[in-house]
Amino acid sequence: MITYSAPSQKNMSSPVKVAVVGASGYSGRELLRLLLLHPHAEIVAVTSRALAGKPLVSEFPRLRGFPQAEALKFIAPDVAAIKALGATVAFLALPHGVAHEFAGPLLEAGLKVIDLSADFRLRDAKVYAEYYDHAHPAPALLDEAVYALSEWRADEIKNARLIACPGCYPTSVLVPLLPLLKAGLLDESPISVSSMSGVSGAGRKESIPFLFVECNESVRAYSVPKHRHVSEIGQELDLAAGRKVRFTFVTHLIPVNQGICTTIFAGLREGVTIDDVSAAYASAYAGRPFVRLLGKNQCPDTKNITSTNFIDVGWAFDERAGRLILMSTEDNLVKGASGQAVQNFNLVHGFPEETGLMVV
Amino acid sequence: MITYSAPSQKNMSSPVKVAVVGASGYSGRELLRLLLLHPHAEIVAVTSRALAGKPLVSEFPRLRGFPQAEALKFIAPDVAAIKALGATVAFLALPHGVAHEFAGPLLEAGLKVIDLSADFRLRDAKVYAEYYDHAHPAPALLDEAVYALSEWRADEIKNARLIACPGCYPTSVLVPLLPLLKAGLLDESPISVSSMSGVSGAGRKESIPFLFVECNESVRAYSVPKHRHVSEIGQELDLAAGRKVRFTFVTHLIPVNQGICTTIFAGLREGVTIDDVSAAYASAYAGRPFVRLLGKNQCPDTKNITSTNFIDVGWAFDERAGRLILMSTEDNLVKGASGQAVQNFNLVHGFPEETGLMVV
Amino acid sequence: MITYSAPSQKNMSSPVKVAVVGASGYSGRELLRLLLLHPHAEIVAVTSRALAGKPLVSEFPRLRGFPQAEALKFIAPDVAAIKALGATVAFLALPHGVAHEFAGPLLEAGLKVIDLSADFRLRDAKVYAEYYDHAHPAPALLDEAVYALSEWRADEIKNARLIACPGCYPTSVLVPLLPLLKAGLLDESPISVSSMSGVSGAGRKESIPFLFVECNESVRAYSVPKHRHVSEIGQELDLAAGRKVRFTFVTHLIPVNQGICTTIFAGLREGVTIDDVSAAYASAYAGRPFVRLLGKNQCPDTKNITSTNFIDVGWAFDERAGRLILMSTEDNLVKGASGQAVQNFNLVHGFPEETGLMVV
Amino acid sequence: MITYSAPSQKNMSSPVKVAVVGASGYSGRELLRLLLLHPHAEIVAVTSRALAGKPLVSEFPRLRGFPQAEALKFIAPDVAAIKALGATVAFLALPHGVAHEFAGPLLEAGLKVIDLSADFRLRDAKVYAEYYDHAHPAPALLDEAVYALSEWRADEIKNARLIACPGCYPTSVLVPLLPLLKAGLLDESPISVSSMSGVSGAGRKESIPFLFVECNESVRAYSVPKHRHVSEIGQELDLAAGRKVRFTFVTHLIPVNQGICTTIFAGLREGVTIDDVSAAYASAYAGRPFVRLLGKNQCPDTKNITSTNFIDVGWAFDERAGRLILMSTEDNLVKGASGQAVQNFNLVHGFPEETGLMVV
Repeated sequence: MITYSAPSQKNMSSPVKVAVVGASGYSGRELLRLLLLHPHAEIVAVTSRALAGKPLVSEFPRLRGFPQAEALKFIAPDVAAIKALGATVAFLALPHGVAHEFAGPLLEAGLKVIDLSADFRLRDAKVYAEYYDHAHPAPALLDEAVYALSEWRADEIKNARLIACPGCYPTSVLVPLLPLLKAGLLDESPISVSSMSGVSGAGRKESIPFLFVECNESVRAYSVPKHRHVSEIGQELDLAAGRKVRFTFVTHLIPVNQGICTTIFAGLREGVTIDDVSAAYASAYAGRPFVRLLGKNQCPDTKNITSTNFIDVGWAFDERAGRLILMSTEDNLVKGASGQAVQNFNLVHGFPEETGLMVV
Repeated sequence: MITYSAPSQKNMSSPVKVAVVGASGYSGRELLRLLLLHPHAEIVAVTSRALAGKPLVSEFPRLRGFPQAEALKFIAPDVAAIKALGATVAFLALPHGVAHEFAGPLLEAGLKVIDLSADFRLRDAKVYAEYYDHAHPAPALLDEAVYALSEWRADEIKNARLIACPGCYPTSVLVPLLPLLKAGLLDESPISVSSMSGVSGAGRKESIPFLFVECNESVRAYSVPKHRHVSEIGQELDLAAGRKVRFTFVTHLIPVNQGICTTIFAGLREGVTIDDVSAAYASAYAGRPFVRLLGKNQCPDTKNITSTNFIDVGWAFDERAGRLILMSTEDNLVKGASGQAVQNFNLVHGFPEETGLMVV
Repeated sequence: MITYSAPSQKNMSSPVKVAVVGASGYSGRELLRLLLLHPHAEIVAVTSRALAGKPLVSEFPRLRGFPQAEALKFIAPDVAAIKALGATVAFLALPHGVAHEFAGPLLEAGLKVIDLSADFRLRDAKVYAEYYDHAHPAPALLDEAVYALSEWRADEIKNARLIACPGCYPTSVLVPLLPLLKAGLLDESPISVSSMSGVSGAGRKESIPFLFVECNESVRAYSVPKHRHVSEIGQELDLAAGRKVRFTFVTHLIPVNQGICTTIFAGLREGVTIDDVSAAYASAYAGRPFVRLLGKNQCPDTKNITSTNFIDVGWAFDERAGRLILMSTEDNLVKGASGQAVQNFNLVHGFPEETGLMVV
Repeated sequence: MITYSAPSQKNMSSPVKVAVVGASGYSGRELLRLLLLHPHAEIVAVTSRALAGKPLVSEFPRLRGFPQAEALKFIAPDVAAIKALGATVAFLALPHGVAHEFAGPLLEAGLKVIDLSADFRLRDAKVYAEYYDHAHPAPALLDEAVYALSEWRADEIKNARLIACPGCYPTSVLVPLLPLLKAGLLDESPISVSSMSGVSGAGRKESIPFLFVECNESVRAYSVPKHRHVSEIGQELDLAAGRKVRFTFVTHLIPVNQGICTTIFAGLREGVTIDDVSAAYASAYAGRPFVRLLGKNQCPDTKNITSTNFIDVGWAFDERAGRLILMSTEDNLVKGASGQAVQNFNLVHGFPEETGLMVV
């Protein structure tokens, strides 16, 4: 029996009208799944240049049988059309380097923008240029955008017009690291981060390396040594620590559809114990519904979080080497993308954070 | 935005108290997942002899964070205890040959029983003995039990005390075949049924053949030539056709967690066309929310139905050989077990059929 | 200890020089794997228009460390160049509709051609046009080509210049059916064939439907009701039976890399028993190293044949319906493509059939 | 065409007779696969207490069709029987804590022992007791045993009677780290090791956590923070470095059958460059056929090494953090167990190291 998401009458009678811009990929698909079941959201537009005119369910047959989904057709991405359909919020589930084309015009048209791409995550346009290989196309908007890790920026998110949802990997790294850096528990020795992601992280695009046969029975590191997500992880770690944090980040592709498993190796400041770590987590995430603290010496498993907005966190201390081990699991498409976007949507509108997201 | 499952106030204030007996397997787990989110059900007891005393979430960490789940502990399966907790409905997610031990006492204690096992599916105790290798232990209850294929026995289900949910394979075979047999569209040539099931169909028990390494990169037929489900499929086909229906049924294990894909080869009576087949389906399943008719020459895919209560049906005619091909996909644990059980629970209580089941 | 493939000195000193034309796909990759370890074959050319100039091991890193593989670079597919390199046999691992461009010129240049594509499998150009949607481009060669199911056409293969290797599915269907049709054991009731293939069957090409995420946790029928392989299966069944054989063939995609599992439903002629079936198999495949007869009521498993040239066959009789069930498993890339090509290469050159193919 | 493993006549005529003790698990199965095709080995005994009397191919149907395999039956593990069958070498593919029961008696009977278990890997019985939770049962043999990482102890292995093959994870960690520690290229900052293993690493035993459904679509760390393999990794790193090496080791279970992917984070001594690392590898592994050095910024992929004895190594330098990244992939059952055992068998008998192991 659900009681936590019982909608108030007021909201039921006037749902928020939303557009999903770039709805043909995996993040778009998950966003549609969540929004379809959200008690206060009404999807009024789904866009895809390639699929314009086609029924939504022809591309996503999983959504057949849901009246709202059956009624939708893809439209071409057009700000005026989105505005005309009454949308007050636009989710951008577009590739990096494309989202910015829509963000400015949508903001000017008076919509709030919740962007799932990397376009507005970095504060410094120079860092963007270094990691994304071209100058930032709309640097003026970087100042306004909020790096919207829901658990850490709720107040800013509530008042933002342009919400930049964190990347999938960064969410899995920042949620376990930020409380410890903020509390000053870690020493300055280099942090090592080993992340493993399911294949949906590579997107829904024609590509030999992501064919079933190329990924099944395969595990491989990739983008070594300079994954693009280093830029946003670095930005946020430094801000939290108040100093330059030295870390190395290696990503691996593993044969699951959805899920990220991140393992972090760090050093504790002298005198700090594993129980201080436990206390810092308990304090940082008290009352936050989507961070599940598994406890000391507990290892999270991606199978417990797939298709949900939860991020599970475990931690342990290696006595022999005197090193701290942090572990997290999340769904790269949900907490790492569309779920966190909906969580931010809830924050913006004053809905309880878990509205529409308490799926098992 | 969801509108179809908006609960009435009356039901919200007095949920139906339910027990899940035998909650440690995969069907039990799915049942808990669905009931936790059901607006009119309150889980008051979950039983497991082996896990009695342990918190529910220690066995199913996926349920962490849901207050109702966090509050539950496994108890030993005991009719008096279940009754004392106020349950008025008991779901039996027990192995075949065990469910009957609880069904009688629970009925006597005044509960309704929704059984997911094979114990009460067959009308004829002799057929049971032939397929299950021992005499039926409670033959008197067979007369009372309803073979509860939701789309075909809604009226009987509403008034039943003992509801025998169909097997996973039989559901996938009967939903596409019954409308055609009832309408007299098929000739008497032998029907061939080839079904493929995900590994959860084998249950959650220690067993070498179902280890990851034994099932991954493996496809194999099994239980050839006499799978136990032949007994209930035969019973229902014969009833629908009003004659003995000749069919052969072969099952295969495939490396997915959940999902059944069934392909059926049959002959059309002279003069009958594929459009008559389409019409028979449209007529039989009009207004039934969980049967999604994909249409002529459309092939269903298990990935569109996993974790949902949908069964997708496609059909085609092989002109060269003059044979009809029927295809269906369903989740063996949901429409093939726990979802159909909840669908029947809804029917019994007069809730809209899709209550608590419209998950994407 | 291997004794069966001990090479004679004569052959060791003068290996057969071979070219692999179209070496960048999965069949090409398997062919290279087998030929590299073949005691009497020397690969002198591997062609790929797209990869010309690149080292072979850059595309197939699995082959690193094998001196012969390390020494090879892709060249553009050019008959004169292949001839100049001394090749006397060309394997064509090209897509359907492309192989014929090379077959004629290679034959004219004096090479033997072992074609893995569908271009020369059909005797009747009209059937080709019906199933492949365009007129056959080289109908004159159809008369000369041998449909090279190794176990059934050994004599013709030995003397052929143009060897058309059977399709992956047809091999899995014909090996179990031909002995029974030849022996007249089957009645004329319609035969139903349900085949399941791993994803490598779809080839190594950029395509959304064959991405990992689209195939993993998915099972689906496809190409219903008219798969192209119906044409060659029909041709060979009719020839074996001496009559038109009525059959329906449905293919399914399953999430494994390699492997086909085929299940066939057929009727026995009156008076014929399952033991007659066993005897027909024993007689047809006595001394044939790659057909492993598992016996009555034994179900084959693809995991026992992956990467090998074996085809495993089991059979059973469904007493209830009076129907025969045949089951086979093979690796679609090996016995269903490259392995059978090498087996035919052995037949052509008088090597023991299993030379270079006895891998576990 | 193979030329590298052409057997000499002398060896062909008098193969080494070997026993595989404990042949029913995954390591045993791989060992049998390799030995069956080994030109100088003859399997004279395969033991399994549970399967004694059964044909080998009934348990491993993949081996059907190989005359030597077809001729073998499991026998109970008995030293006298093994001796009587003429075996001069015994491979022990037994669980940890069982192998030692056979090692002593077999040595006394005059056989050489190649042990795949952990029983004789540690020099210090106290360390064994700490990591394996009981006193070492045969400490006297620890002095004699050689920790047989083939690339590093070839001379000792040649003369050993008791050969302790390294663990799967340790092989993947030591091969990339030892050359750098020996050459003094690494600083003393803590080393972090993140390893991912396929499920066969858990063995072939009845166990819920290793069922298909529990492992598929799942990634999880385990045995944190004190995996047993820390003991042997630590022993060998310290020996190579001539100092206590500080490292942390975290293992993850990933849904593939076979394969380990290891990523290591370490610090370079001041003044050392990535090119020094490349040079150290080139020097350490020149002429070693099974270590494939992929080069700087190249990431290995487990799919390139499954079922082979290769270990692929890549490396990169993270300029931003000033940290070295080492990556390796190997098959846990081959280079990490049975393949290395055969490699050691070759060393012991003076066969070329790659004899019987050059499979693609």
